[in-house]
Parts: sequence; structure tokens; C-alpha cells
Amino acid sequence: MTAGTVGTAVENTRTRLLATALRLFSEHGVEGTSLQMIAAELGVTKAAVYYHFKTKDEIADAVVAPALRELDQLVDEASTRRTRGARIDHALAGFVDLLVRHRTLAALLPSDPGILRAIDRSLRPSGREPFTTRLLALISGPDPDIRERVLTHVLLAGLGLAAGAPDMAELDDETLREHLIEAGRRLLGRPRRRQ
Amino acid sequence: MTAGTVGTAVENTRTRLLATALRLFSEHGVEGTSLQMIAAELGVTKAAVYYHFKTKDEIADAVVAPALRELDQLVDEASTRRTRGARIDHALAGFVDLLVRHRTLAALLPSDPGILRAIDRSLRPSGREPFTTRLLALISGPDPDIRERVLTHVLLAGLGLAAGAPDMAELDDETLREHLIEAGRRLLGRPRRRQ
Repeated sequence: MTAGTVGTAVENTRTRLLATALRLFSEHGVEGTSLQMIAAELGVTKAAVYYHFKTKDEIADAVVAPALRELDQLVDEASTRRTRGARIDHALAGFVDLLVRHRTLAALLPSDPGILRAIDRSLRPSGREPFTTRLLALISGPDPDIRERVLTHVLLAGLGLAAGAPDMAELDDETLREHLIEAGRRLLGRPRRRQ
Repeated sequence: MTAGTVGTAVENTRTRLLATALRLFSEHGVEGTSLQMIAAELGVTKAAVYYHFKTKDEIADAVVAPALRELDQLVDEASTRRTRGARIDHALAGFVDLLVRHRTLAALLPSDPGILRAIDRSLRPSGREPFTTRLLALISGPDPDIRERVLTHVLLAGLGLAAGAPDMAELDDETLREHLIEAGRRLLGRPRRRQ
């Protein structure tokens, strides 16, 4: 085995570990999931889990990290668009796409304080403004009025919760994406897109 | 002291107890609040609390009960309106009004599993459909399509979360109400109201 394949195997274990942790978080909550449960589900020793993560908080942080990174990139990308309409369209489509791809994680948002704490821990030390503030500035300009702040809040909360709602679990990704984007466009007063 | 004034005093204690419990739930979460803390905050003995409620679950149930009862009444009232537009307008204005009056409770929804469990416990044995299902039927008719289901879900979740969001705490009730109703009307494709 070369150093390269060892690296890949370690990376694979880390990826499987995070997927397994997310699944267990969904079933038992972050509080109700132990490192031991994750190890047992993966069929590895607790020491193998410790090799990657020292605490459950570190695992929760790593579970939310990809979606938060994508959100940041999305706002950066949308900011480069020239018109306000194009910025909103890009941000809305990207936000909905991200929610749909991370549906399992989105489903934890309304009921799992462990996930909310992980998101909070991840945002705090970065020194960056939270993506909600950045999305708001993108949608409403640098000095949003109260009306725009309320609309943006309803948008982010409504789309985020609907994407992960048990009632929506039966919908395929494309159908969910289409209707969430329509809801967002209505809220933001954007014209309906042609199919 | 007559039997009547004793009854009133007992009722007052119960009302104060629930207001105090809600405040402590807001600060410490349902999990982090004990009967002892509630008694201490009220300046009564734990036995006085026990006179009204045997467990913290009973207190949580009683804290959410008035809002759930009002929601049920709201849907009943809105159902009597003759046109779909009038039913939607009545339900939306009533729902927003209710959220704004119960802002402190609404603020607990996204982060406190104890409150969500209390709501769940209260709805289950009633044999009634949850208000979300009844509101959906009211807004979209008895056989809503997927598009209407997603829009209604974004509406309920978005308004509910925005009403209790820390970012919105500085807004006075009337301002919050006005902008939440506007968001709801946009989502449901209702014309703007004249001021």
C-alpha cells in the first residue's frame, strides 16, 4: 500500500463516518448519538473514530461544514452578477439547490439544538458575517429597510424549514426545487420563470 | 375570604406561574428549567407549584395550550367565510396576529425540542387534524396539489420563525404584523391591501 492509497482510505473512512453520523443524528438527535454508536454503526473501533475526531462536537461541526462552505461560495458568486435581479436569481436558485442537496441536514434545523450549536460555532470564529446577513445585503442592498429584512427572514426560514419537513420527504429533488424557487420568487417579487 | 376570591387567587397564581415558566423556558430552554426554579422565581414553595402541575411536561402543555386553542378557533372562524379569498385573508391576518401576540412562545419553536414535544402531545390525543392540515385545506381546498402544499408550508414555517427571530425582536407588534401579512399575501398570490 502506498502513502497515496493510505491517504485515500483514511479520507474514505472520514467521509463514511460523517455520513453515518448525519444518519444517526437524524434518528436520535445530536444529543442522543454517542461516538460509540457511530463506531458500532460503521463497524470500527471507537479508537478509529478518535483518530478523526476527539469529540462529538467536532463531528457535528464537520457535518455542517460543507453546506456552510457552499453557502459562502454561493453568496460570493452571486455578488459578482451585475444587476440586482441577476444577483437575486442566482442566490435564490443556489440556496434552494443547496437546501435540496442537504435535505437530511435541513430536516434537523427546526428540532436539533446540537446542529444549531454546531452552525453557531462554525460561524463565530470565522470573523465573517453570517450568510443570512450577506444574503440580505445581496437581496436588498447594503442598507435594507424593515420590510426587506422581514421578507428575507421569511424567505430563508420558510425555504429552510420546508426543504427538510417530513411532509416534503416524499417529493423528488426536482419537484421540491421547482416549488421552493417559485415560493422564493413570489416572496421577493420576481417574475415567474419560463419553463 | 369567600370561595370566590380563593378561586380567583388560585387562578392568578396559575396565570403567573405559566407566564414565569414561559420566561424561564425562553432563558434556559424547557430542559434547563426545573419546577424548583419556577417556584423560586415566583417566590412560592415547590408544593405550591405541585398544587397546579405535577410535572414540567404539564406546565409546558399548559404554556402552549392557549395559542393552540386560538389557532383552532381561527380556522373554525375562517372556514365560515364564503369565498376562498375571504377565507385566506381571515386565516392569514389571524395567524399573523396570533404569532405576534405569542412572540415569546414563537421564539422557542426553532430551538426548543421541549416546546415542540408539548405541541405534539397536545395535538395527538385531540383526534383533530393538526392546524397545519386544516389551514392547508382552508387555503388550497380539500385536495391541495404539491405546489399549494409547498407554498403553504413555506408560509407557516417562514412566518412562524420570522415572528420569533431575535433579529425581529426590536420591531413593535404593529410593524411586525404589517410586514408578515405582506409576506404571506405575496406567497399566496393575494393582492396588496390598501392601507
